[in-house]
Parts: sequence; structure tokens; C-alpha cells
Amino acid sequence: MIRRRGTLFVVSAPSGAGKTTLCREIRRRLPDVRYSVSCTTRVPRAGEVDGADFRFIAEDEFRVMLEREELAEWATVHGHLYGTPAAPLEAALGQGHDVLLDIDTQGAAQLRARYPEAVLVFIVAPSMAELEQRLRERRSDAESEIARRLARAREEIALWRRYDYLIVNRDVKDAMEHLESIILAERCRTARLGLTFPDLEVTT
Amino acid sequence: MIRRRGTLFVVSAPSGAGKTTLCREIRRRLPDVRYSVSCTTRVPRAGEVDGADFRFIAEDEFRVMLEREELAEWATVHGHLYGTPAAPLEAALGQGHDVLLDIDTQGAAQLRARYPEAVLVFIVAPSMAELEQRLRERRSDAESEIARRLARAREEIALWRRYDYLIVNRDVKDAMEHLESIILAERCRTARLGLTFPDLEVTT
Repeated sequence: MIRRRGTLFVVSAPSGAGKTTLCREIRRRLPDVRYSVSCTTRVPRAGEVDGADFRFIAEDEFRVMLEREELAEWATVHGHLYGTPAAPLEAALGQGHDVLLDIDTQGAAQLRARYPEAVLVFIVAPSMAELEQRLRERRSDAESEIARRLARAREEIALWRRYDYLIVNRDVKDAMEHLESIILAERCRTARLGLTFPDLEVTT
Repeated sequence: MIRRRGTLFVVSAPSGAGKTTLCREIRRRLPDVRYSVSCTTRVPRAGEVDGADFRFIAEDEFRVMLEREELAEWATVHGHLYGTPAAPLEAALGQGHDVLLDIDTQGAAQLRARYPEAVLVFIVAPSMAELEQRLRERRSDAESEIARRLARAREEIALWRRYDYLIVNRDVKDAMEHLESIILAERCRTARLGLTFPDLEVTT
């Protein structure tokens, strides 16, 4: 039997790149991957479920968690606070579960520092024009919000080299297959098996 | 457009681990992966096609290629010579094609030295007992040959840490999915895109 610590998969993408759809689909296709639910002070979007997509909390509550150092990472995005509670994440990894975290570039950098063995995946739309079109089709954002998201996307895309993998999301089915492949492949990496698979237990 | 040098995928396994079946199936599922045909001085097994599975050549001819340094790697396995012609391999990689090489541990070590960026995959049967059973079911080998293959398998399995990935072949479908995932995932690695994808060409 191969036993190992779980692997932390961190997925980042500019808004509109398709990250949320991909992460939702991965949870359906690989139900053994745990999904870390972040806390946020922003208001829910249509269809978002409290406790499933995010834990939607008040800023006061967020500040208390920060003070108590209960967050594995935290960031301010578009004026809202986002954070990942550390305790459930540590517990899942320690029990050998792979965990998927859907998070912005600031959070990803903090997680890399804390978990150097984490696998970082960056998802991009095939072009800025395509990204802008997707943001407009969403119709939930005002013009000034779209401009702000595009400016931030440019900043985030510049950081793609910090990630282990890059998925260009031209087609959801294809991007999905690549994200699933990254998770399956990383499970076969000998470097991850090294500690818990010391002598290749083939029975003789 | 992402343009890059092709990646060399090197697959090794003890006889009976299922490598030949997996490599044949990968060629069907990922037809854009080139398959490097090795030369060998051993006689063809039932069903093996000259020029497709191996180039079956005389020992004299092999020695000439060796003298002319036309081989990227070569090895003696079970008393027979095996080698990979360097020119077609270099050409395919240079043109951006991924190449799959099905090769023993000696050859894999030589290829790692020559191509440090190669991806090495090791495939094992779930146990030595299972491996022995598979060798017996093949029915093409004499008892002494089976004993020799098992002894060699033990030596090869001890080298699994030299490989990037380990696939435990419990089930062909599952092992196939993992091998395919490794190839798809490696195509997304930012380290491989680094040289040819310097500024993430998102058109604005």
C-alpha cells in the first residue's frame, strides 16, 4: 500500500478565465479531492451557496480570525477580504487527502511559502479580448468593475512563472481534462512517494 | 501560440509489468506522440512487426552503429543488444514533437544523462507474485528465462527513485489513464514553457 500526505493543489486565474467552472467540475469528477472553502467578506453572487462556494462572513469576524492567526493565507481582492482557515486544511492533508484550493495570486504566494510542496496551477483565457468578452457576458458587473478586473488580470497574468502548471482555457472540456491530468499525474510523482514508499513494497 | 521543443517520455518496467500494452495503447490514444523504434539483435516475438515494434537487426550492423556513435543509448538485456538511433529522435524533439521511448533501466539512465529534461516513468506490477504469474501466462519463456527475468526485475525495481513518476499497474485501464495524464500534465508545466512562452502572448 502507498500511504502519503495529501497534496495541496492551488488554482489561480484572473476573473473570467473559467476557474470557478473548472473547480466545480473537478469536484464532481474527482470526489476524493477535498475542496477547501474560503471565507470572504464580499456578498454572494447569484447561485453561490454559503458554506459550499464560500463562507460569507462579516468583516469583524474575519478580523478576529486574522488576529488569532487561524488563516493559512489571506488577501484583499477588489476591496474584499478572502482567507483560508488553516485547521481543516492541515487536518485533511495530514489524513492523506488531496485538497483543491481556488485562490488569487496573493493567496497562492502565501500558500507556496507555507507549503513548498504544493502544486500551483494557473488558468488563463486564450486572450485578453476573450477574457473581456467573458466578463461582459457575465452581466453581473458594472463597467468600472470590468475595467478594474481587466487591469488586475494583467497584473496576475504577469505572475504565471510562479506557478507549476499553466492551462490555457480555450475549451472547457479540454481545460478540464488537463486539470484532472495534473492531479492524477502528481499522485504518481516519485518525489511525493519518497517519504512513505521507501522500499517499494512488492511482496515476494 | 505556444511553441516549444518536444518532451522525451521514457518508460521503463520489468518484463511482465505491462509496459508494451500500455505504450501501444498510448500511441492509439495520443497519435501526436511520436514513438521511437529501437534497434535490437534479439529475435521477434509472435506478433511483433519489424520497423514498428523494433528494428530487428544483426549484431554486426548494431556494432557499426555503435562505432559511428549513431545511438542515443544502448544496452545489453538478457544477452541481446538494444539501442536508440539518435538522429530521428533529435529531429522529432527539435520539431516540437513529444516522443515516447519504451526502454530498460540502463537505457533510461543514459537518456537522463543526455536529456536532463526528459520525463522518466517507471511501471511496476502490484507485486512480485503478480509479476511472476504474468510471465508464466505469457507461455513464451522457458523456466530458466522466467527465473532470469524475475531476478532482473528485482534489480530494476530497486532503481524506481531515479524516475519522475511511478505507475503501479493493478488495472490496465487505470494505469493507462495515469500514463496519459502524465503526458498531458507535463505539456502544461510552466518550466517547459519557459523558453518559448516568455511573455504569455495574450493579445490585447
